[in-house]
Amino acid sequence: MSARLSGPPAAGTRGAGLLLGIDFGGTKMAVGVSDADGRLLAHRRVPTHAEQGAPQALARALALAGDLVGEVGGPLAAAGVASPGVVRPDGIDLAPNVPGWERLRLADAVRDALDVPRVAVDNDLNAAALAELRHGALRGVDPGLVVGIGTGVAAAVTVGGAVLPGHRGAAGEIGYAVAGGPWPGTMLELDFSGRALDRLAADLDVPGGTAGLAAAAEQPGAARDALAARVDEAARALATCCLLLDPQRIVLVGGVTRSGLIRRMLVDRLTEALPHPPDVVRSDFADDAALYGALALARDTVPASL
Amino acid sequence: MSARLSGPPAAGTRGAGLLLGIDFGGTKMAVGVSDADGRLLAHRRVPTHAEQGAPQALARALALAGDLVGEVGGPLAAAGVASPGVVRPDGIDLAPNVPGWERLRLADAVRDALDVPRVAVDNDLNAAALAELRHGALRGVDPGLVVGIGTGVAAAVTVGGAVLPGHRGAAGEIGYAVAGGPWPGTMLELDFSGRALDRLAADLDVPGGTAGLAAAAEQPGAARDALAARVDEAARALATCCLLLDPQRIVLVGGVTRSGLIRRMLVDRLTEALPHPPDVVRSDFADDAALYGALALARDTVPASL
Repeated sequence: MSARLSGPPAAGTRGAGLLLGIDFGGTKMAVGVSDADGRLLAHRRVPTHAEQGAPQALARALALAGDLVGEVGGPLAAAGVASPGVVRPDGIDLAPNVPGWERLRLADAVRDALDVPRVAVDNDLNAAALAELRHGALRGVDPGLVVGIGTGVAAAVTVGGAVLPGHRGAAGEIGYAVAGGPWPGTMLELDFSGRALDRLAADLDVPGGTAGLAAAAEQPGAARDALAARVDEAARALATCCLLLDPQRIVLVGGVTRSGLIRRMLVDRLTEALPHPPDVVRSDFADDAALYGALALARDTVPASL
Repeated sequence: MSARLSGPPAAGTRGAGLLLGIDFGGTKMAVGVSDADGRLLAHRRVPTHAEQGAPQALARALALAGDLVGEVGGPLAAAGVASPGVVRPDGIDLAPNVPGWERLRLADAVRDALDVPRVAVDNDLNAAALAELRHGALRGVDPGLVVGIGTGVAAAVTVGGAVLPGHRGAAGEIGYAVAGGPWPGTMLELDFSGRALDRLAADLDVPGGTAGLAAAAEQPGAARDALAARVDEAARALATCCLLLDPQRIVLVGGVTRSGLIRRMLVDRLTEALPHPPDVVRSDFADDAALYGALALARDTVPASL
């Protein structure tokens, strides 16, 4: 998939302050170049091919970034990177969906490949939440909750206009929630991610993966019953999150939340369970919230005087 | 139960800045009088007799407060009140354990009965969390989570050294979490509060309520199996809270957490389920965290110049 939102700026004007954003997802990777104010100038998305491992994904993303920067006409002032998991300088925890991802040193790799002086890396849901706070559905909202249901399941929390990192940088990792039957059940991410729902569709002989399953579940029958059981588990975890945080709004991101049926099923259950159900919306950024967040991370590394 | 921690101060010294704290619980009410620095001077606890309704409980607590202030030698500079539920000026939401509690105007009642110029009212777990932040196990801890398992089940969240209120003042009301079997299951508070465990003990013909049940569950058998099933549900909700918040420490308060067995069962399950289990401790204040929090609320209403 490829999108070119506007042409390159005249050399020597915006080009002096270009920002690069990379969003590494378990299924797709998005790369974007913006001007110093975060206005997107060029933007492409490519498959991750997670089953082929982390190094090839990183190499292709960096090559694409180099191409885009060349097209727009550099130089780069800063880069921001969004990744699943808990990002440390020497690796990444809790990112099981791309084999080898946990051993990457993302900031170093981006700095070396693109000769960019400033690189910031954060969790992809935290980046998405930053974009929602700055430009999206969490402007003026407090507390806010971003829930991502894509290749994996995760969340981010905003309090007082900032993204909550948590004590070990691991706030929002709700994919590890205990789901399913008697303790210890299963992990929510293994029940309700895009991958899990793709497998469920295949088990039911429903073509088209998660989207096909959601379409089939519009009518009563086995597909709806099976999907409802998975939504129940997700709603149980999200209800607990809402009770703990009392968010003003939940912003849904990620491919699974494209399904209007799945969104309605989640909202119905939260409304049933919660004394104070929050507003629930899908991100205005469609699938690009983390990319915009990566650009916001990049911009935050640039001193105001530049 | 009654405790007199030290004698009254000399009139005209500390007496000028006395603070009153009242913690209304579903089973017990605690009243304390402190000096201007929060040092407890006198302190008593009486049963709530919740089944007899809210007005008698409030009237007895206010009479006890008047007696204590008289003994210590007033006047009062301020009062702080901790209550279950979500406290509004004209009533209290989500406080089902004392019939009629939701219609009380606590701040007005305390102001009128005790002729005190400043009255602050907050949720009891939020008050407990304030006490833990100021004087207890959450000093220097971020984020923090206080979990109360007593007559009811609730929590409080601290971020950046402050208690998180939530959008509608309802953060922490995890007693409404979806527990039990298939959706919509039951409420966590109906499965794992002191009242719920007292009922479970009675159903099993185990004498001594929750404490008796916990003692019986030290040995394998029906009591342990029944308690373990309830702990599973509580641990499922607490694991989700920990995943969302990534707290540095959980502080347990409330009568049920007096049981070392129940604490160990909870910690074992969190350790099993969480990639990053937090430190779990019982409050240093035993059952008085909310009372100390009420005194902290009172102190915060007094201008620094007084």
